[in-house]
Amino acid sequence: MTSSVRVESSVSRPMGTSMRALVKEAPGPGAAMREVPVPEPGPGEVLVRVEAASVCGTDLHIERWDPWAQENFGPPPMTFGHEMAGVVVAHGAGAGRIALGELVAVETHVVDGTCYQCRTGRGHVCQNMRILGVHMPGSFAQYAAIPETNAWAVEGLSAEIAALQEPLGNAVHATFVEEIAGQSIAVLGCGPIGVMAVAVCRQAGAGRIFATDMNPERLEMARRMGADVTMQASDDVVGRIRAETDGNGVDVVLEMSGAEPALHQGLAAVTNGGRVSLLGTHARPASIDLSAEVIFKGLRIYGITGRRLYETWYRTTALLEEGLDLSPVITHRLPLSRYAEAFDLVASGHAGKVVLLPQEE
Amino acid sequence: MTSSVRVESSVSRPMGTSMRALVKEAPGPGAAMREVPVPEPGPGEVLVRVEAASVCGTDLHIERWDPWAQENFGPPPMTFGHEMAGVVVAHGAGAGRIALGELVAVETHVVDGTCYQCRTGRGHVCQNMRILGVHMPGSFAQYAAIPETNAWAVEGLSAEIAALQEPLGNAVHATFVEEIAGQSIAVLGCGPIGVMAVAVCRQAGAGRIFATDMNPERLEMARRMGADVTMQASDDVVGRIRAETDGNGVDVVLEMSGAEPALHQGLAAVTNGGRVSLLGTHARPASIDLSAEVIFKGLRIYGITGRRLYETWYRTTALLEEGLDLSPVITHRLPLSRYAEAFDLVASGHAGKVVLLPQEE
Amino acid sequence: MTSSVRVESSVSRPMGTSMRALVKEAPGPGAAMREVPVPEPGPGEVLVRVEAASVCGTDLHIERWDPWAQENFGPPPMTFGHEMAGVVVAHGAGAGRIALGELVAVETHVVDGTCYQCRTGRGHVCQNMRILGVHMPGSFAQYAAIPETNAWAVEGLSAEIAALQEPLGNAVHATFVEEIAGQSIAVLGCGPIGVMAVAVCRQAGAGRIFATDMNPERLEMARRMGADVTMQASDDVVGRIRAETDGNGVDVVLEMSGAEPALHQGLAAVTNGGRVSLLGTHARPASIDLSAEVIFKGLRIYGITGRRLYETWYRTTALLEEGLDLSPVITHRLPLSRYAEAFDLVASGHAGKVVLLPQEE
Amino acid sequence: MTSSVRVESSVSRPMGTSMRALVKEAPGPGAAMREVPVPEPGPGEVLVRVEAASVCGTDLHIERWDPWAQENFGPPPMTFGHEMAGVVVAHGAGAGRIALGELVAVETHVVDGTCYQCRTGRGHVCQNMRILGVHMPGSFAQYAAIPETNAWAVEGLSAEIAALQEPLGNAVHATFVEEIAGQSIAVLGCGPIGVMAVAVCRQAGAGRIFATDMNPERLEMARRMGADVTMQASDDVVGRIRAETDGNGVDVVLEMSGAEPALHQGLAAVTNGGRVSLLGTHARPASIDLSAEVIFKGLRIYGITGRRLYETWYRTTALLEEGLDLSPVITHRLPLSRYAEAFDLVASGHAGKVVLLPQEE
Repeated sequence: MTSSVRVESSVSRPMGTSMRALVKEAPGPGAAMREVPVPEPGPGEVLVRVEAASVCGTDLHIERWDPWAQENFGPPPMTFGHEMAGVVVAHGAGAGRIALGELVAVETHVVDGTCYQCRTGRGHVCQNMRILGVHMPGSFAQYAAIPETNAWAVEGLSAEIAALQEPLGNAVHATFVEEIAGQSIAVLGCGPIGVMAVAVCRQAGAGRIFATDMNPERLEMARRMGADVTMQASDDVVGRIRAETDGNGVDVVLEMSGAEPALHQGLAAVTNGGRVSLLGTHARPASIDLSAEVIFKGLRIYGITGRRLYETWYRTTALLEEGLDLSPVITHRLPLSRYAEAFDLVASGHAGKVVLLPQEE
Repeated sequence: MTSSVRVESSVSRPMGTSMRALVKEAPGPGAAMREVPVPEPGPGEVLVRVEAASVCGTDLHIERWDPWAQENFGPPPMTFGHEMAGVVVAHGAGAGRIALGELVAVETHVVDGTCYQCRTGRGHVCQNMRILGVHMPGSFAQYAAIPETNAWAVEGLSAEIAALQEPLGNAVHATFVEEIAGQSIAVLGCGPIGVMAVAVCRQAGAGRIFATDMNPERLEMARRMGADVTMQASDDVVGRIRAETDGNGVDVVLEMSGAEPALHQGLAAVTNGGRVSLLGTHARPASIDLSAEVIFKGLRIYGITGRRLYETWYRTTALLEEGLDLSPVITHRLPLSRYAEAFDLVASGHAGKVVLLPQEE
Repeated sequence: MTSSVRVESSVSRPMGTSMRALVKEAPGPGAAMREVPVPEPGPGEVLVRVEAASVCGTDLHIERWDPWAQENFGPPPMTFGHEMAGVVVAHGAGAGRIALGELVAVETHVVDGTCYQCRTGRGHVCQNMRILGVHMPGSFAQYAAIPETNAWAVEGLSAEIAALQEPLGNAVHATFVEEIAGQSIAVLGCGPIGVMAVAVCRQAGAGRIFATDMNPERLEMARRMGADVTMQASDDVVGRIRAETDGNGVDVVLEMSGAEPALHQGLAAVTNGGRVSLLGTHARPASIDLSAEVIFKGLRIYGITGRRLYETWYRTTALLEEGLDLSPVITHRLPLSRYAEAFDLVASGHAGKVVLLPQEE
Repeated sequence: MTSSVRVESSVSRPMGTSMRALVKEAPGPGAAMREVPVPEPGPGEVLVRVEAASVCGTDLHIERWDPWAQENFGPPPMTFGHEMAGVVVAHGAGAGRIALGELVAVETHVVDGTCYQCRTGRGHVCQNMRILGVHMPGSFAQYAAIPETNAWAVEGLSAEIAALQEPLGNAVHATFVEEIAGQSIAVLGCGPIGVMAVAVCRQAGAGRIFATDMNPERLEMARRMGADVTMQASDDVVGRIRAETDGNGVDVVLEMSGAEPALHQGLAAVTNGGRVSLLGTHARPASIDLSAEVIFKGLRIYGITGRRLYETWYRTTALLEEGLDLSPVITHRLPLSRYAEAFDLVASGHAGKVVLLPQEE
């Protein structure tokens, strides 16, 4: 550490100069636990001791090295992972808004602050966005250096729930682009973000909530998080929704699956003049009958990415403070060294959120 | 009944040609129970057998004959009362959307449908508004004739709760002019509409909810309906709110009291760039430092009247279907003949909602 | 005429009992001028002597009997045509808001007034919409009976410009779903509605306006109506827009062509977090890379159909009163009997708006 | 200059170590031209050679030392003035986004970037706002040091017009909090910001524009900038507006005067469900009948301060690029040394905008 970096004196566990990290070493599938130098926080950055790092589908793409990862990640060798919470243990030059020893969650999108989007309140679509664990070293490590701007102080939450604020923020962003209270909702796709969206809608006074997925365990989780009606995605989703909404269809569709059949179900099930939030990413182009599915219905469609900086964070915090309970979503906790098992669980579709614990052996 | 009026054949109690009604007989205080003709539904109207008619502050103004009533009511002799629910027992010519025998709540604002406001989705501020029980005969009677457009079919609710949908709609309108989820709220004034607003905010995922009133019983009701913090209006409301919101103030103020001191508390307690809904009516002009209280804070202030036609009704219905429980708000039920007692209860400030039952002796 | 229909006494030309009309006589291509009975205005309707009836692409679909027409039109035999203006010459029972002798333009979407959409200010997507000239007799005739609600009184405009208010309203609706002033715009497709959108954007204080089409005459018209930059659709539209917007892309895309390549240009040319209005209808499904083209860009996409009832009409009227000049858009005026020539002109793509004149021989 | 400050080498006029500045030397009325050190740009700041500094009413308050100034300004001795444009001549440490030699206008509100408001896109109501020329040295000087974030690069404008972008931004912010195109408008108060608002509304496609003032010269200016109807504020403003809007009233009121009678005219003249922007600051509390003037009319009232950071700047730039002509607003240009004459002109109410030129003798 240079003299411009202030280090927490009360760190319980001594901080050495090297740490364990999960590193994508070269282009191609796989990753490896390595001993690497503890990063040094640059100007405006803080060093965070990572207490919990949950696994996102993106991490799986990187580990498996799919076309998206080939195009976007790196360059290797680099640590990946991005959903995280931890304790601030050192300040880079100019940092200090957040005290040493505080628990923080982390906004994973690092924006330039100067582009048209950033200058007009739309940093979530910054033209020069960099993402932790994709374009810069990430959270699957004992320590991570992040811009202090991106650190979100947390009170009254465990580190593992705090880490979930990032994907929860996706759900909150997708849900609240328009009002929810008293509106009927269809959540299509009940992975972790989908079921969090169900919980957010329930807490926000939604009318009837419908949820669909291929996986019965996920539908069970959706019910537990507040869905009124759950359906196999292969069932007559549109017919059932119409039948239970006086034929009107739902006011809101939250498309969380990235599956084209679900998209078409959503466009058919939404009421004329309703709205659709698209969050699930699609691996290939979708074929859409724009006239019948969008134009003549007078729909509003929102592409959703990231979190509004930082409105979404204030809202997620308020929801958690008022009782939003994400604990059922976390189904597995593993030390970082068991990363391979974690990735397989996520890939299986039978897990909820899997949290890696970098400080445990 | 003329031949163009279809009458419910299955009415359990026979409908005669006269009925009991509470009539303001002449300008001046007071009212009297009278036997008057059962109204005949005109074209587009339905005849409703009134099962529950709750008492609004406006009814008190009419009974006591305050300046507002002198200017707006009548002309006498006329039946008053407007919050109501009942069973459709006859159709006027052209009516029929709602079947005979159905329970309905009633939108009390009768609009012209042709003015600029009505033609642009703002019927709640129609330029030629007529109000049931103010400009045309009302609900404190065994039967009332209303435009079928204003009848709102009800399922799964008791008549007394159904009658509350009208004032609940005021609360819903005031609350949802902007988003609520994750926002901190101050509800100023905990009369029936204020506590219903508390309940609506709670159900809609609000952040911290503060509520104020002069009356400890009303604060107790506010707590029961979901307020996190209740305060005597004479306490340091602004200081307490600032202290519990990291100094920011609340995102939203719902001014339900019509009291000028509460207004100033609200303007001081709301965060910069926040919003204020004004629903409580003021008996005299308020003195407002617009520069300091409104302009430099960049506030948005909404004057709220009535209900959005009929968005608000869809939303109140959805909230009730998903569990909004108004039953604690009703503190008294009395036969119509005990109207004087009902008005005194409302005037005392020690009652919640008082419901009159015109079919009971 | 029955006794309940009041007829204008001052009609200059005597109204007989039959009239000339362009009739689709049977399923299949073609249409024929026929002598048919003058329609009688029903309850709430007015009878309009049609002074100008402009030709829409939809009319061409009906005449040519394309798959859309086969599915939607009729049943034959029926008069078609819908864009129109004329003089009110008789009132059906209950009508009378608009005086006999007044010039009116016509909203062509006849809504039920009772569905969820109509009851919540979204009549333009009524669940039981009927369209003049598609589901009920239309404007290619000397007289048409229409609901008085759909008649829009016109002052200070010629009948042919008044007739254009209906397609102008499409452009206004598509343009003003969000703010325009100071925003850069790309209008893709410069048919009549496209160039009207250019004119609307210009009048509404848009920033730089880009316009594209395949047809040089249409680009010339777009320039005349206010476009700053016009481009062949086959040129590097995206590159040029990026180059002239500091690399940001445009704030707003108005997709008026219904051509898939234009759609992709629009999605690529719009700035991150920008908005796209889709008005041009697509004959076949479009293949869209939702992740890259919509989601990661955080776009808002609006399907646009019809006109907001009746906000859009108030705004079109205000724009015309303040100087919006549509006269360059009208390139041809023909008596109704020369309908075949009119349709060929529209089909050629070399005409602007073609107006048929039913009162001329 | 320290070594961390890069200085423009091509500055035509040599920059010494001292400069002329207009200084409020002590509490009390008056100000004096003084020779003071050229400020040194701190970290993140740029040094601007002031080419034009227009006079705002606020400057008059400071010079005359009214109660607002006593409470807010300083502490003296300090240079005041804030509306400005000039050339960047030196970079503080870390600055450099804007090249040396570029002309810039200046956002005068310096925000903390970390409060709740700044973190949620509402920096214009930052809780720790500092204002150039009020809380920190200002523009009535040959040079000013400002945060580079607040410098807005200008192309194709003269310095004096560029300086007007700051008050123009007030007008743009007040005008565009909601849509304008096709809306009827009343601008109450035709000082420089009022007439700029008229011009903005005209360019943005407003419907009929009404403007009021006490001063015939200002009404003449309003006509020149695009008002359709101008009225003495003492005339029957409400009656005339009602008469010319079919009795509806105007859709939008822009209150730019800070005069209580104008406020009441505005609340009476606005249509039910309309909106009112309050920008003119009030020297004393206003007495408002909230029930009749705001609540029963269902109004939306916006307190307007500053400019949205930096949406408003993008929009002002786009409007100027597309032809907004502010040159008529500037009625006087004077060297800085003639400041006393400038202040008297502003105080007289007979001037438009008065621009001081610090580089002229």
